[in-house]
Amino acid sequence: MTTTSGSAPRTRLAPAQRREQLLDLGIRLLAHRSLEELSIDLLAEEAGISRGLLYHYFGSKQAFHEAVVRHAADDLIAQTTPPTGGAPMVRLLASVTAYVDYVVANHEGYVSLVKAAAGGNESLRAIYEEARSALNDRVFREDAQGEIIADTPASRLVVRGWSAMCEELVLSWIDDPRGVTREQLLEIIAASLPAVVEVIPAG
Amino acid sequence: MTTTSGSAPRTRLAPAQRREQLLDLGIRLLAHRSLEELSIDLLAEEAGISRGLLYHYFGSKQAFHEAVVRHAADDLIAQTTPPTGGAPMVRLLASVTAYVDYVVANHEGYVSLVKAAAGGNESLRAIYEEARSALNDRVFREDAQGEIIADTPASRLVVRGWSAMCEELVLSWIDDPRGVTREQLLEIIAASLPAVVEVIPAG
Repeated sequence: MTTTSGSAPRTRLAPAQRREQLLDLGIRLLAHRSLEELSIDLLAEEAGISRGLLYHYFGSKQAFHEAVVRHAADDLIAQTTPPTGGAPMVRLLASVTAYVDYVVANHEGYVSLVKAAAGGNESLRAIYEEARSALNDRVFREDAQGEIIADTPASRLVVRGWSAMCEELVLSWIDDPRGVTREQLLEIIAASLPAVVEVIPAG
Repeated sequence: MTTTSGSAPRTRLAPAQRREQLLDLGIRLLAHRSLEELSIDLLAEEAGISRGLLYHYFGSKQAFHEAVVRHAADDLIAQTTPPTGGAPMVRLLASVTAYVDYVVANHEGYVSLVKAAAGGNESLRAIYEEARSALNDRVFREDAQGEIIADTPASRLVVRGWSAMCEELVLSWIDDPRGVTREQLLEIIAASLPAVVEVIPAG
């Protein structure tokens, strides 16, 4: 029983497109909300559709959260894709800039994901770890010639450590940016990767 | 109604000493157990005293966990105190070595603390943050002449990032130590501090 409102006629979307659109809305809502605050009720209200239909699309609140977080992780990976050309450090800085911008723009949701993943929500943790691995693997794939980093067990470990440092740096900086400009933060994050790789002792 | 066993007579301890002894036992139990697994029942059994007496000492399970974690944090801070003499890097390496040894020896409890703190247990998070701040502050106190690090907002931020990296490095290395020796890990952790400080751009 569709009601016809006064405005433009509602476009009929294929279920997959409709689901995609709902996930995009979920991500927008997460920018300034934690996962716990992102309920099916809220999404239903914002999307102007029934809770029943949302359960039809997502099954459960947990499955809905997983779908939104997976979508957000895909967005993060896509948005931080470095440009195809240029020197390795230029591409790294572009990627790091996109990462910082993403975390700033999606702060609440990002923090709540880190919290859920670290706190023992196993399926969210799996999605978080997968995204992190994809970002870390990219460092090696983008630098296949080893211009910055040779691919060894020690450098794999160091890149994991570096990415934990990046997360801490950006989240701490958002909490208290006094005395450090965005440009300084970006330079610290980008330049610290070759710096920590440099300290790996010869095997 | 004290029962006299065949062995040495039980020493009567002052309440403060007794509490201390129970906390030490709690920490030993945490070495190979998570916080969730550390119950009042288990402690009572291991200490050979009644649950009632434990509730008398600690009040509640949450208060007991807080007392144990605070005690563990004090231990970590004490054990990682650098030697008084020697060059800054030698003292840093000694401190880092003690940190890695502590996390290796108390792995289960440490991981569960990180999890509880990150997952939103506010009082455990406060203890964890306090301990981390004490360790980070020490970097600046130990190096008051700024031989390694000048005390600026950017270097404070970088030391926070470095300590998150250290935690990730040691926990990842414990999960999968293949290809990286303990000595390499220690050198990476110690040498990465001046390396990341070095990349801070001039203000």
